[in-house]
Amino acid sequence: MNKIKISLDAMGGDNAPEIVVEGAAEAKVRYPDIEFIFFGNEKILDPLIKSKKNLFDMETIHTDEFIKPNDKPSNVIRRGANTSMALAIKSVKIKKSDAMVSAGNTGALMAFSKLFLKTISGINRPAIVACFPTKEGEVCMLDLGANIECDKNNLIQFALMGQAFAKIVIGIKNPRVGLLNVGEEEIKGFDYLRDASDSLKSLGKIINYCGYLEGDRITDGLVDVIVTDGFTGNIALKTAEGTASFFTNSLRESLKKSIFSKLGYFLAKKSLEGFRAHMDPRKYNGAVFLGLNGIAVKSHGGTDAFGFANAIGVAYDMAKYNFIEDLKKKLSITTKHLVL
Amino acid sequence: MNKIKISLDAMGGDNAPEIVVEGAAEAKVRYPDIEFIFFGNEKILDPLIKSKKNLFDMETIHTDEFIKPNDKPSNVIRRGANTSMALAIKSVKIKKSDAMVSAGNTGALMAFSKLFLKTISGINRPAIVACFPTKEGEVCMLDLGANIECDKNNLIQFALMGQAFAKIVIGIKNPRVGLLNVGEEEIKGFDYLRDASDSLKSLGKIINYCGYLEGDRITDGLVDVIVTDGFTGNIALKTAEGTASFFTNSLRESLKKSIFSKLGYFLAKKSLEGFRAHMDPRKYNGAVFLGLNGIAVKSHGGTDAFGFANAIGVAYDMAKYNFIEDLKKKLSITTKHLVL
Repeated sequence: MNKIKISLDAMGGDNAPEIVVEGAAEAKVRYPDIEFIFFGNEKILDPLIKSKKNLFDMETIHTDEFIKPNDKPSNVIRRGANTSMALAIKSVKIKKSDAMVSAGNTGALMAFSKLFLKTISGINRPAIVACFPTKEGEVCMLDLGANIECDKNNLIQFALMGQAFAKIVIGIKNPRVGLLNVGEEEIKGFDYLRDASDSLKSLGKIINYCGYLEGDRITDGLVDVIVTDGFTGNIALKTAEGTASFFTNSLRESLKKSIFSKLGYFLAKKSLEGFRAHMDPRKYNGAVFLGLNGIAVKSHGGTDAFGFANAIGVAYDMAKYNFIEDLKKKLSITTKHLVL
Repeated sequence: MNKIKISLDAMGGDNAPEIVVEGAAEAKVRYPDIEFIFFGNEKILDPLIKSKKNLFDMETIHTDEFIKPNDKPSNVIRRGANTSMALAIKSVKIKKSDAMVSAGNTGALMAFSKLFLKTISGINRPAIVACFPTKEGEVCMLDLGANIECDKNNLIQFALMGQAFAKIVIGIKNPRVGLLNVGEEEIKGFDYLRDASDSLKSLGKIINYCGYLEGDRITDGLVDVIVTDGFTGNIALKTAEGTASFFTNSLRESLKKSIFSKLGYFLAKKSLEGFRAHMDPRKYNGAVFLGLNGIAVKSHGGTDAFGFANAIGVAYDMAKYNFIEDLKKKLSITTKHLVL
């Protein structure tokens, strides 16, 4: 059995390196064929790693340097080549590992990934993808903020990348793809959106395209992949996150109000477990910068071991089930149909 | 005491004319100085109106014609001049009434409003505004979909209109205004967003501008007015609505699961009332097409009497507290500072 080797930026994130090591131990239980390389300060890392029975034989690569949360991508590129994050990405580039995961600075991770891993031929611009809960299961959306402005070809490429991602990471055979727009009618939205929609329709054999989708249908489970530009995607993602946390917090405050509501909450707790588990943002942790010659997964900075293990799971699935090869195949068929 | 006269499209909406009449009766209790003109089929309307004690002396203007939910705005303009909606808007134009409210077809309402009421001098494009709940109270956002593409001047004008709206309808003395963007840093977003931000900063004496705001802060209560283009605003609004209804429905399903959770819900019910009342979409019913020489308020098509009365409340406040005059004054001061 071929092992899947994952490089971890052990120093990235609010609770690093503790949750990185704990998340790795949890992921190793789920995926016994996984191996890790930890990049970071070995003096801090080694005792943590040794405290986990299933990580005792994992490699550590020492560096004193790490990226800080507020480091600017431009500075990072110039001065951060020996940081734990940069070294982890380089290990993917030289094929010492199959993928990398970091809970560190998003801008730095994007800048290094692009610099070291380079864009796949046929992809003009990489895009950020992540998954969310829906009524029926989960959906992935891209671009979530890498590209403020997009054209028709970017959107078609996002559709191809999103489709490959949903197939491999969510596990859907023939993912349904929708374009985010302000109406479902053909005439709605910008010219480049209508052009992208026409092209996607003409790619019926390659992409299971379902047309436009409005913002209130994102969580409906009608599609598996939602394609949009990075500005709109970022606003939609954050609006959904904000609304969800506003609801959860207001509800929690209300339930604390009286002894009756506290008792009521206690009685309902078991029934609410499924709801909470389905909505748990840690379950959907792991955003990916898609379209590069290598797999780099971004974990939420403030997550815990369970969340970090899920981000490792995304990297594991993409590496094990050949995401990049699958995407390249689809791209080569597509370019026969369209000039992208 | 001057009466405030409101024209009602009695035939518009899923539950018309019943909820229109019931909503009017409810609004009349709240605002004793209100008067209505009902536009619609008098054979159906008269018995409904007569059944309400406080509406007995209100005027009815008969028409057999009304706009259907799926009528296209272009057809409506050509053939709908005698519909209940068009006549209600015309009554505002000829100053027979101070404002109008309709729960009918949004596209038709926008088309007629623009045609009959015309844009205020100094406003290039009207915008749709509505209010939403936040942690602290409520916030209004515009544009929610009237203008797919916007430039710097549109956004500045939206800020002025939103500010006048929040002052009069939410009742905030010096409303805080934010620009929706993908980050809070100065360099984020499109050029026209940065230009609008710079201009808004230079209007410090006229607008209480607070900078950029991300999607997850919409419900935070940090600002009272959120300004954005119609594409982004529509996506953000619908994403928030979809997320809220997804949460509410999933929670409801979970609470039905066992006898314990049903009992728990029963015990917590009283404490949850405040939460439900604050989130109740009927409370925020009443979207307005701002920037016209007249007040036209759109009620949600599927609302009930309570929701329709709230939409009437928006029209009442705007008419009573001179929204249009207030906006015109601000526009004339602004044009001294900026060429819009």
